[in-house]
Amino acid sequence: MDRRLQIYREASALILERGFAGASMSDIAVAVGLTKAGLYHFVSSKEDLLYEIMLHGMAKLEHDVIAPALAEADPATRLEVIVRRHIRNVVGADSALRNPISIVIDEPQGLSPERRREIDARKRRYMDLIRDTLTALQARGVVRPELNPTVAAFTIIGTIMWVARWRRPNGRLSLDEISDQIVGNLLSGLRGPAA
Amino acid sequence: MDRRLQIYREASALILERGFAGASMSDIAVAVGLTKAGLYHFVSSKEDLLYEIMLHGMAKLEHDVIAPALAEADPATRLEVIVRRHIRNVVGADSALRNPISIVIDEPQGLSPERRREIDARKRRYMDLIRDTLTALQARGVVRPELNPTVAAFTIIGTIMWVARWRRPNGRLSLDEISDQIVGNLLSGLRGPAA
Repeated sequence: MDRRLQIYREASALILERGFAGASMSDIAVAVGLTKAGLYHFVSSKEDLLYEIMLHGMAKLEHDVIAPALAEADPATRLEVIVRRHIRNVVGADSALRNPISIVIDEPQGLSPERRREIDARKRRYMDLIRDTLTALQARGVVRPELNPTVAAFTIIGTIMWVARWRRPNGRLSLDEISDQIVGNLLSGLRGPAA
Repeated sequence: MDRRLQIYREASALILERGFAGASMSDIAVAVGLTKAGLYHFVSSKEDLLYEIMLHGMAKLEHDVIAPALAEADPATRLEVIVRRHIRNVVGADSALRNPISIVIDEPQGLSPERRREIDARKRRYMDLIRDTLTALQARGVVRPELNPTVAAFTIIGTIMWVARWRRPNGRLSLDEISDQIVGNLLSGLRGPAA
């Protein structure tokens, strides 16, 4: 499994750098130290490899972010768990680098329509979780009544995904400081001036 | 110039869909109704085409967003001008569809290192404008003192760029409603509970 994970990681990094069409199976084989025939021992096609990466990335999102969030009964805590854990998931908890797998799941180019629909449905459940959490906070009067939960949910996801683009491993701010800032901006934005 | 703009637009749409490596000059020629030789009459290589798209996209950002923002002396108004005008720039003011050129300028894969540095420097001036505007608001006590202007500036850009991913032309919310929501969340997030 470690070998497979390494293939997913290197393939994702190449796909992010060159695009799905630009990352060849030969390039991926070289990056993981396999012959092309050796790589085909693990996966039967480049599209299958992308699909497996998506499944792995979604499973990781569900495990690292969604399950712990669902375990939180309080919607304010749940929202904070989502933001902090998703940032960590995107940036990579164990390495100083960004996690290419978590980013590739937002690059659907290259999947067949059927597989794309399947992945999109799993993503939609995550989107619904964030939106439902915002709606619950709105019902409690924590979130401004004029806030549109759909726009806010997309803003939250976009803000998190964007961290992978700009954050530098040796940047001035630690990952916790970045998360604190984002959670701070977000929560005061949701609450509004009356809170 | 109309023909050239049409080439930029169709090429950008293909690059977004297939990645830079996956969008061939033949595909681009077909999309704009030219022979491949006809396309080479306008641009000498695929990398030159990408570079011209970037220059055009940056010039448009500077014209549509940065110049009007600099004309605003009041930093709160300036920030609102930036957000509303950049959303319109990304989504496409004149069409119901997203504007692929405005999105491609955030996909630097395919540029030579030298050209990439040049484009990055122009992008950095935009980033600096947003950050300086936030710092000015902080000096006036409008923005929470604990807010980090760099993280907030990236959050603003990420939120705007993400709109291109999720907004549907026939969606429930108009572009103005989406902008109102984003400006509302943003401003109350920057101000914090004390405002």
